[in-house]
Parts: sequence; C-alpha cells; structure tokens
Amino acid sequence: MNTHDLVRELREANSSKIVLLVADGLGGLPLTPGGKTELETARSPNLDACAAAGTSGLSIPVLPGITPGSGPGHLGLFGYDPLEFRIGRGILEALGINFPVGPDDVCVRGNFCTLGSDGNITDRRAGRPSTERCVEIVEKLRTIRVTGAEVFVEPVKEHRFVLVFRGEGLGDAVNDTDPQITGVPPHLAKGADAASQKTATLVNEFIVKANQVLKADAPTNGATLRGFAKKPSILSMQELYGLRSAAIAVYPMYKGLARLVGMDILDAGDTLAGQVAMLKKVWNDYDFFFLHYKYTDSTGEDGNFPAKVQMIEKLDAVIPDIRALKPDVFIVTGDHSTPSKMRSHSWHPVPTVIVADTCRTDGLTEFHESACLRGGLGQFEAKHLMLLAMAHAGRFGKYGA
Amino acid sequence: MNTHDLVRELREANSSKIVLLVADGLGGLPLTPGGKTELETARSPNLDACAAAGTSGLSIPVLPGITPGSGPGHLGLFGYDPLEFRIGRGILEALGINFPVGPDDVCVRGNFCTLGSDGNITDRRAGRPSTERCVEIVEKLRTIRVTGAEVFVEPVKEHRFVLVFRGEGLGDAVNDTDPQITGVPPHLAKGADAASQKTATLVNEFIVKANQVLKADAPTNGATLRGFAKKPSILSMQELYGLRSAAIAVYPMYKGLARLVGMDILDAGDTLAGQVAMLKKVWNDYDFFFLHYKYTDSTGEDGNFPAKVQMIEKLDAVIPDIRALKPDVFIVTGDHSTPSKMRSHSWHPVPTVIVADTCRTDGLTEFHESACLRGGLGQFEAKHLMLLAMAHAGRFGKYGA
Repeated sequence: MNTHDLVRELREANSSKIVLLVADGLGGLPLTPGGKTELETARSPNLDACAAAGTSGLSIPVLPGITPGSGPGHLGLFGYDPLEFRIGRGILEALGINFPVGPDDVCVRGNFCTLGSDGNITDRRAGRPSTERCVEIVEKLRTIRVTGAEVFVEPVKEHRFVLVFRGEGLGDAVNDTDPQITGVPPHLAKGADAASQKTATLVNEFIVKANQVLKADAPTNGATLRGFAKKPSILSMQELYGLRSAAIAVYPMYKGLARLVGMDILDAGDTLAGQVAMLKKVWNDYDFFFLHYKYTDSTGEDGNFPAKVQMIEKLDAVIPDIRALKPDVFIVTGDHSTPSKMRSHSWHPVPTVIVADTCRTDGLTEFHESACLRGGLGQFEAKHLMLLAMAHAGRFGKYGA
Repeated sequence: MNTHDLVRELREANSSKIVLLVADGLGGLPLTPGGKTELETARSPNLDACAAAGTSGLSIPVLPGITPGSGPGHLGLFGYDPLEFRIGRGILEALGINFPVGPDDVCVRGNFCTLGSDGNITDRRAGRPSTERCVEIVEKLRTIRVTGAEVFVEPVKEHRFVLVFRGEGLGDAVNDTDPQITGVPPHLAKGADAASQKTATLVNEFIVKANQVLKADAPTNGATLRGFAKKPSILSMQELYGLRSAAIAVYPMYKGLARLVGMDILDAGDTLAGQVAMLKKVWNDYDFFFLHYKYTDSTGEDGNFPAKVQMIEKLDAVIPDIRALKPDVFIVTGDHSTPSKMRSHSWHPVPTVIVADTCRTDGLTEFHESACLRGGLGQFEAKHLMLLAMAHAGRFGKYGA
C-alpha cells in the first residue's frame, strides 16, 4: 500500500500544532578526524534541552550516500519520497518568485552571462549585475515573442531570471543550455521527445532573439538556461495530511518548495526574530508551521566553520520563544548536511529531534551528531519524519483491526 | 525480488524449533519525561537473562509513526508485509471462532445494539448481554433467509457475533453499518462496486428481517456491522517457511490470525501455565510455536501502569519453563506498543530479543526499551523478524553463488 494512501486513510483532525524548524545544511563534520562538528562545537543549551525532553536521531535525506539538493531535501522532510517526486530547478525558481505556474507551463532558470564577439561565454554570471540591472534587462527581453506560444520573463536576483513557456503540448525533457564552463558558446536546446522538441524550438528562437535584443548590453549580453521543468502532480499538505500549513521562510527557493506542496507563504522579513514574530502572530490560523533557517547552510558552503557555529548559536537563542508557544510537536532538523570542511551539501545523516508529550525518553541531554547516534529515533529516512510528526500530534488513527 | 519468493528459494528443512512469544502491546512509555517505562520498571530477571544471552533490538511494526491494530501487528511478526496484506476485521473474527471460511465468503463482525422506538440506537452494546443470551439471539437470527445467497450467523461473546454471506460474486467493499454513536439509526449498507453492491443488498435484506425477528427482544433488538472482509490470498507458514506451525493463544482474534496463516490452533485454556504446558506437550509435533500473551496489552489499554508492570513480571516468571525446552530460536517481542500513558496501541518501536546459539553478543544485560536501543538488532521492520528466526534456526541456505 502506498504511504500517501495510508496517510489519507489514517489521518484524523484535531487542534494540535506542529512546528518543523529546518536548519538548512545542519549536519556537519569535524575539520580533523576525532574533532568536533560545528553543532558539537556550538554552545546550544536550548537545543540540548530539546534533546533532553524529546527523542533524537539522524535523518537520512534520500538514501545512504546520496547528497540532495534543497528540493529533494525538503520534499523528504515534508513526507514526499524524493525519489518518486522529482522537482526541476525551473519550477522551484518560478514558484519561489510567486509566478502563477499553469499546469502545462515549462519553466526554466536563466542566468545572464557575458558573450565574447565569437559567441563564447567569457563570464557565466555576467559580472554579477545588480538586481536593478537584472530588472532592466528582463524588461528588454519581455519584448520578445515566440512562434505559437506565450513566453514570460521574470527577474530573480542579480544575474538570475526565470523563463516560462506556455503553450499546448510542451514537454520539459530539454537539456540545459548552460555549458557550466567559459570559452565555449551556450548549448543549443534539444528535446528528448516530440513534445520537448517543440519546447526546444521555442527556446532556441527565444535565445536568438535575446542575443539580438541584448547585443549592446555587455556584460549582460547573453543568457544560459538550466533545469527545464513542468509542475509535477503532487498532493498539497492539506490534501495529504489535512494540515493547514504555513511556510515562514526568507529565501525564494524555500518559499517555492513550500508553495509546491500548497503551504501558505507568509512574509516575515529576513530575520529569525521576524520569523518567530510571524509564527506567534498566525499561531491560531494554522496547524503546521515550516520555519526555514538558511544560514547554517550558507556558512557551511562558504567553508566557514566558526561562522556556522555562530549561526547555530543564533538559532539556538530563538528556540525558547518557539517552545513558549507550546507546540504539540516541535521538530528541529535539517534538509541535509553542509559540512564546512566540504564547502558543499553532503549525504551525512542529519541531527533531528522531536519534542512531544508522547516521546519515549532516550537519555540524551545534548543535541548533535554523535549524541543523535544514540537517540531513540535511530537513523531513519527523512520521508518518514512527517509520519512521526502526525503520530505524536495524535493525528493518526490505528491501521487495521 | 519478492521477499516471500526469496524465502521459499532459500529455505531448508531441519529439526530446529522456533518459539515466538508475543507479549501483546509490550512496549511502553514513561509516565513523565525521563521516567521509566513499564518494562523498565518491572523486575524481570528472566527476560534480562535473554538479553544477556541473545541479541536485542526494537521492532517497528509497520512504518515509523504508524500504529497497528492486532492484525497488521501480528502479520508483520509472521513475516507478511502488513502494508501488502490487509486483513479485515470480519475475516479475523470469523477465523477466530473457527468458522470454516470459504474462498468467496464475505464475513463481517456484528454487534447487538438497542434500538429505540424511533429506530435510533440507544445502546451500542445492547447492555452487554451475557454470552448465553448472545447464543439465544443468534439462534433466532439463524431462521432468516436472504435472496440468492446463504447466510451464517455465529455467536462470539457478549454482544458480539459474526455474520457470513456465501454466494457467487460477492464483494467486500461495503461500508460499516455501525455509526459508532448513539441517537442515530444504523447506516444502510452500500457497495463501492457492483459485486459489493450485491453484498450490500443482502446485508440490508438481512437487517430488515433481523429487526422484525428481534423486535420484542429489547435491549438486544438491533444489530450493527463492521469490517466486511473476504479471506485474502495468503501463503501458509508451512508453504512459506516449510514450518509445521502451532498457535497457543487464549483470545479468538489471535487464533484467527494464526489460522489465517495456516497454523494449527491448540486449545490450552486461558492461563500462561496452561499455554506452557501445551507447548511442552506438543513440542515434538511442530517446528514453530506462536505463544500469545494478552495481558500486557489489556492493562496498557486500561491505563493501569502498575498492572502492566505486574503482567510483565508474570510473563517473566514462565520464561525459564520455555527455555528449559531448549528451543533453537527463542524470540520475545510484541505486536506493537501499548503505553499505559496513552491507554491505546501506539507506533513506538517494540523491545525484541532473539536467543540462539548463533547470536552475536551486544553487551546488554537488561531487556527493556532503552537497553534495546543499544541492541545488536538495531531498529528493524517487524516483517524481517522471521527472516532472522529462520537464519538462526539454520533453515536458510545461501543466496547466490
């Protein structure tokens, strides 16, 4: 039996509140063997108090050894098997900027680049233009029409934009035109099937016209495209769990992910304090709250171990404000690990703690990688976390007689 | 490869004996965070000795967060994926009273109820009639005939009975007629497909006639029905494992479950001592013995922590008598947790120990939830337990060259 069918069969409504706090890239590594990870180094008494009150463990984002991007990392945490639901970058970017994506739209992420006179890429990020400049260039691209379909161009930030093709029978099995290196021209788009070839033809037409329109606009005189994707068919959190769900996130991609699964996106500025204030404000309006904290990941990606430690401590400081709201289920986890040592996402299991009245004590008094290894949740697949959240919230009936 | 195909390919016969002792609802919770569970509180030196001699761990009955009924809980322990094999209440009740269920029979559990003059239910259990009274009422219902099918009525206990419809092309996708509340009439039966509608028509005809037959018999003047189900297609333990299997259980539902997978049902009275005496008596006649102990669950459901502790200690006392028979593999586990704190089944993993000569020592000297967390079996899905039992019994050959 399919797990989502099981969830829909067993779920029961009540007035419980679930808070899922995702510290992006939370898990880490020691810089030297036998040393401490970022989380082991951080002074985090409030996370430790969660471990003492709840049950801890380690979440495996996808499968052992598989490093997820933010998309699969979060989908798993929301209870959608990341190997079953594949979400392209284009759709995430489009949803992240709140573009009203239609069921047949093909979305793709665009980067402005600099093209030399020979048509080869000389700078993959076009000298990182300002966002204002991005908006100006996008305005120019909006004059472009393509044959037999609509095209939408939307600015994101700096060199990034989103392109959406809307028309009948467009496929999304189209290669990236971004060659990921300089010194060569962008790739031509090709479709892997007839419907996707239709899209590729539109894409190539658009790019030829864009190169014309932008030819005097160096360094932002070209564009590459990555992650062609249509909106997948996916149940909303409301449909799946019966949870009125809200996302309190700062960055567009996480808003996009939350929007994909039907959460309401609440704008809370760009500080943790603002996010917690929003949580308090809407406490009575929702059953499920997704709080996203970015800086444990970005400092990890920067390879800045002490900065990541500091960001963990900053997160730790707001935990009491969240727990003061007395959520029935409070979860702290990450979508994946981002060890400063690796300067990238990794596959390492992610420290996770659930605090609820129905927790079985596991004797832990600290929250970090090596403590979680002895925790009551053991090592589990991220996609099962929401099952536990629903169970601890008293929102599941019994399976079978 | 399907696990059952693998089992049938690898299994080898020998003279080993496997004893599976299921303490229903064994796992628990501390009443207050940081406190002790029932099993941690109990003085259970003989279970502790099993932990010292064997390998322990925690069994996940279905999936993390999923609370099973007795059916899925036991099927998992017997090695049948509870998400693949769904067993309706009706079939369990019918098998539990040893009704010879045919392959096309539709079985359903019935409850006598009290109907007011307006047809609304005033007591869902008809004032809990005696079992003698149940038998009398059932005799009256046996006079009823329905159009185009046979119907069988069998007494169970008190207000409970079983109804079986036998005819061609009857489906079991029929709603419960029990509205689960008083003050309203029983629901009409409806079928979700043509075959099930055929069953529903028979059901409604039966109920109209039953209301006539019983109209002077208040408080047992009505009936509600729950859990329409046909017998699923399922391999017997003999077919799957090549094990001559016996069940020594007290309660009908567990006998029914054991009968479903083809075990012989041995009647041993209703005491643990009687069960162990039966085990000794038939020791040479079987390869696999399922012993079911109910009272760890019923005291948990009563919310009676000290009583559950006492029932664990009572169970502990018979362990030496079982081990004295020198089973090659001795397993103690539960079908799910039933924490007194929750007064219900729960999803929490279940303490499990395997004792066999081929056990790898894990250093444990106690048998309870927090010890098992450090046990050599780790946390595992219940459906894999029988694979371990077969392996420790030397009943599996090597997979592949």
